[in-house]
Amino acid sequence: MTAETISVGTEILLGNIVNTNAAYLAAQYAKFGIESYYQTTVGDNAARLTETLKLAASRSDLVVLTGGLGPTQDDITKETVAEYFGKKLVEDRATMERIEAFFAKRGKTMAENNVRQAMIPEGARILENNNGLAPGILIETEEGKAFLLLPGPPEELRAIWEAHVEPYLREKTGDVIYSSMVKVCGRSESEVAELLDDLIVRGGDVTVAPYAKTAEVHLRVTAHAQNEKDAKKLVKPVVKEIKGRLGNSVYTTHEERTLEEEVVELLKANALTMTTVESCTGGLIAGRIVNVPGVSEVYKSGYITYSNKAKRKMVGVKKKTLDKYGAVSAQTVTEMVRGAAAYTKADVAVAVSGIAGPDGGTDEKPVGLVYIAANVCGEITVQEYHFSGNREKIRENAVANALILLRGCVLEHYSRDLYGEEQG
Amino acid sequence: MTAETISVGTEILLGNIVNTNAAYLAAQYAKFGIESYYQTTVGDNAARLTETLKLAASRSDLVVLTGGLGPTQDDITKETVAEYFGKKLVEDRATMERIEAFFAKRGKTMAENNVRQAMIPEGARILENNNGLAPGILIETEEGKAFLLLPGPPEELRAIWEAHVEPYLREKTGDVIYSSMVKVCGRSESEVAELLDDLIVRGGDVTVAPYAKTAEVHLRVTAHAQNEKDAKKLVKPVVKEIKGRLGNSVYTTHEERTLEEEVVELLKANALTMTTVESCTGGLIAGRIVNVPGVSEVYKSGYITYSNKAKRKMVGVKKKTLDKYGAVSAQTVTEMVRGAAAYTKADVAVAVSGIAGPDGGTDEKPVGLVYIAANVCGEITVQEYHFSGNREKIRENAVANALILLRGCVLEHYSRDLYGEEQG
Repeated sequence: MTAETISVGTEILLGNIVNTNAAYLAAQYAKFGIESYYQTTVGDNAARLTETLKLAASRSDLVVLTGGLGPTQDDITKETVAEYFGKKLVEDRATMERIEAFFAKRGKTMAENNVRQAMIPEGARILENNNGLAPGILIETEEGKAFLLLPGPPEELRAIWEAHVEPYLREKTGDVIYSSMVKVCGRSESEVAELLDDLIVRGGDVTVAPYAKTAEVHLRVTAHAQNEKDAKKLVKPVVKEIKGRLGNSVYTTHEERTLEEEVVELLKANALTMTTVESCTGGLIAGRIVNVPGVSEVYKSGYITYSNKAKRKMVGVKKKTLDKYGAVSAQTVTEMVRGAAAYTKADVAVAVSGIAGPDGGTDEKPVGLVYIAANVCGEITVQEYHFSGNREKIRENAVANALILLRGCVLEHYSRDLYGEEQG
Repeated sequence: MTAETISVGTEILLGNIVNTNAAYLAAQYAKFGIESYYQTTVGDNAARLTETLKLAASRSDLVVLTGGLGPTQDDITKETVAEYFGKKLVEDRATMERIEAFFAKRGKTMAENNVRQAMIPEGARILENNNGLAPGILIETEEGKAFLLLPGPPEELRAIWEAHVEPYLREKTGDVIYSSMVKVCGRSESEVAELLDDLIVRGGDVTVAPYAKTAEVHLRVTAHAQNEKDAKKLVKPVVKEIKGRLGNSVYTTHEERTLEEEVVELLKANALTMTTVESCTGGLIAGRIVNVPGVSEVYKSGYITYSNKAKRKMVGVKKKTLDKYGAVSAQTVTEMVRGAAAYTKADVAVAVSGIAGPDGGTDEKPVGLVYIAANVCGEITVQEYHFSGNREKIRENAVANALILLRGCVLEHYSRDLYGEEQG
């Protein structure tokens, strides 16, 4: 089976938006083992869209069109596709009612244009949209080809894909795909690739695909089989093998779980509270931690100590330390992390001080030099990092590595406790 | 003149990367007033690339191919294009020397494969690449069409574009484009569109294109003319008109200037220092402020007061206030912003408290309810907001609106000073 994507929208051709839908859909095809050889972007123009549609229909089994389903006169995808298939547009009552209810709820009058969003090519299947007004539309031809129309806003497209298209494809491909995500932190992509060399190249029933993120590598392990049980049976030993080789650097095998969620969960599981004290990251570590719903049990407060005075006044860094070693030093972050934990009575603290640039670097302390300290129940670990890139990139790396260091220290602290080592 | 982009790369078809090059190139075409009707992505496959190339050559004057210029056997763009034009690949001595020098400098042995990167279709123009090994290649046909091959890594592509392709296109189009950016904050896209209705639809010499960002609208004003002076003459009165209609909500006309930079500059200009005290945004306002290089003059420290206890202990919110009005209330943010300024001796402070969800909402205080307070030299302004979307979206909106409120209050404070009103 082959699929191709036609993205419809002048805003893409003008470079106003980046086409993330095409990447999302491509990854979805790959997940189902559907080959995809082409992606096309075309404007809101009937003649050119028809030409593109014709070409796509000649070479692919599944043609997915995104965009151009909105209420304005510019939005012509549905009309063009209906015309291409020689089908009338007819009002779908259920869709119309959803649209009316939407406006009624907001106490707004429905514009005449919105009626267009309830018009569906005759005989097409409607894929309900819970995040917007334009439903997805599926047209199957007698030759067994499928044409899928999805709205352009990514959150609408993705929700319809998950709720309606995935089950449809599962049935159509007669193929069950099972995939697991293995998220790795604190190791470089090349390090992971080397350790998993034989697993990544293996072109067999199970594929392992690595994606690099800031300070993380995500590995998708995918297998195809006749049924879910068989597919799982193929994936599980590979995931186990990866975990065995990478050890603690695997922080989760949950698809949606983020590093900050993992840190918060780890702290919750050990009934620990945490605080943050940030210089060059200026609140971004806290910002990531606070993005975890229900974090209030773990995280109560934090400091941004950008100036030396703030480091002294807020978390008790000694003037002598700042004078002797400077704000960007192992000694300073040690005192930051000790003070922050003491002042907030948190069990765990993390501190960052570094030179994010573009100015402020010296030969001895260049831009990109960052010290991070973690304090786990009084036990302090400091690490020195050298990040590259611009100010934003350096700060982003510092944030991710602060979470990784903190996680590593908590894990180590408790594994030692577990085995009765170094307790006193 | 028309242009189209062919992105070559299996990694795009697998959804491993988002095609940002296509968006960059599209914006570049638009800048030159070059029409673009199609973008295609195709894998590293000679037959399919040839087919795509043929189609593009039949309908566009400028065909830009990106990707597939690397050293591996998978990279076949150059070979395929050369074959399409019936041209031999010949070694370019200058390119070869650059590649040899690259490896010599790093003390590494050059791989046999790298020789391929110095092979250029006979008669083609070489566009030097200062960020990588593969040069850009320009082939002009007798019919006046141009085929441009650019490397896939965005930083290489962009550098070659700026250094070599822009001057080429400027000459070729005989057209000068001048554009100004007008950045607007604190007004919705529809509000801006309504106020600029006649300017936005105008299909004349000057175009005004709005792009919505979180709590911002960016307007690109573009004109084409025979020379820069004439183009500027067209743009300037339109920018002036926009500024007149939108007033203070225009925060900059500098292309690269961000809202946080504008806030920091405004504070610097008035010799003010600032602090932040954040609940639901948990450090993200500070995080944005600290992304401005040289912010240390203005921003010294900030608080994250996620728990009620932290609000009391760190910035002196009264227990009575929290009990009576709750943490998410005008009263609480007022005390937060008063306390933070007093404790840090900052001239200006901003405080946020809200319900970012997904839990914690009630009928009275639903998810999305956010209070923001600004304190400018003791003068406190509080606003209530209702944001929609998920936790991340609500927080992002709160951060942007905090900066906008703060900016507005500082501007108002000083404009009143200026006119001698309400002083005492």
